[in-house]
Amino acid sequence: MPLVRITQQDVRTPEQSRRLADLVQEVMREHFAAPPGDRYQILETLPVGAIIAEDTGLGIERSEGVVIIQITQQGRSQEQKQAIFAALAERLAQEDLVRPEDLVISIVGNQREDWSFGHGRAQFLTGEL
Amino acid sequence: MPLVRITQQDVRTPEQSRRLADLVQEVMREHFAAPPGDRYQILETLPVGAIIAEDTGLGIERSEGVVIIQITQQGRSQEQKQAIFAALAERLAQEDLVRPEDLVISIVGNQREDWSFGHGRAQFLTGEL
Amino acid sequence: MPLVRITQQDVRTPEQSRRLADLVQEVMREHFAAPPGDRYQILETLPVGAIIAEDTGLGIERSEGVVIIQITQQGRSQEQKQAIFAALAERLAQEDLVRPEDLVISIVGNQREDWSFGHGRAQFLTGEL
Repeated sequence: MPLVRITQQDVRTPEQSRRLADLVQEVMREHFAAPPGDRYQILETLPVGAIIAEDTGLGIERSEGVVIIQITQQGRSQEQKQAIFAALAERLAQEDLVRPEDLVISIVGNQREDWSFGHGRAQFLTGEL
Repeated sequence: MPLVRITQQDVRTPEQSRRLADLVQEVMREHFAAPPGDRYQILETLPVGAIIAEDTGLGIERSEGVVIIQITQQGRSQEQKQAIFAALAERLAQEDLVRPEDLVISIVGNQREDWSFGHGRAQFLTGEL
Repeated sequence: MPLVRITQQDVRTPEQSRRLADLVQEVMREHFAAPPGDRYQILETLPVGAIIAEDTGLGIERSEGVVIIQITQQGRSQEQKQAIFAALAERLAQEDLVRPEDLVISIVGNQREDWSFGHGRAQFLTGEL
């Protein structure tokens, strides 16, 4: 937790895609209170045309490099959410992986009882986490 | 916002798939208070057999054309939700894109602070939206 | 309802994948109050490398067989959630389909008004369900 789904179109090399995922995880560690090893990512690569993202009139120009990051988590504050939005845009742009104009993020919340990380146990309830 | 994931099996042409997505967006505009340009869609096409949809005893016969639409949004009323269910079924059937029997819809809610539409900003909090 | 997305890497045969989905549904029927025919599954198979799952320091060793199950539902109790976690791990291991170490589960909740199972109707609101 968090569970992060990174949805992109098929415009990056495997190495670039992996680096993108690594940077997303670094931001989770630094700004989203993710402890060491708390990494649960799905990297979904779809054909060009499968993501249709406009801009709600914000004046943002998308490209084929558009990325939608969906995060399922519990317990983070509004400040932490704003911090990861900013850090994701900055870090991914620094390495020319995702333009800030191409980054769309959506978070969904659940509860501590909604997670099992292996062995069929609810580790947030058993005291293991 | 809303973020709409359209999951289908590989039974439509690219043109039909795009028209399907366009009609879904028209319904969002007309019945779900989506402002102009408020379009964020992921079109996921899986092999036949990847969607297993029965009917909870409702007497609905599915076909390979089954479509599951997952919508992440905040702020819509029960009436708006019922309006898009009805309009999606009607509009997609009118153009022979999805049979009403093949349309499954699930909505998940989040909050205004859970969205960034670009540039790493939370536009619902900054006043931009 | 529930809507279940099973995300795996491409390491199982079609028959194994189908059996995996069938067992997940059996657990929903037995431990999650799913009535007969209440089956809504998406089986998403991605290339090896597309799921990156570590262990939050729990000492769990993942393999390429890692599976992430995302469940959208409403109304289940904490006890029911713990019951499906345990039963999924047990049943999938019994048939050598998923190692208990490779099973990650995340649940998201919504409301009765958030579902349409066909014909554009909200069957939980119309009294059909």
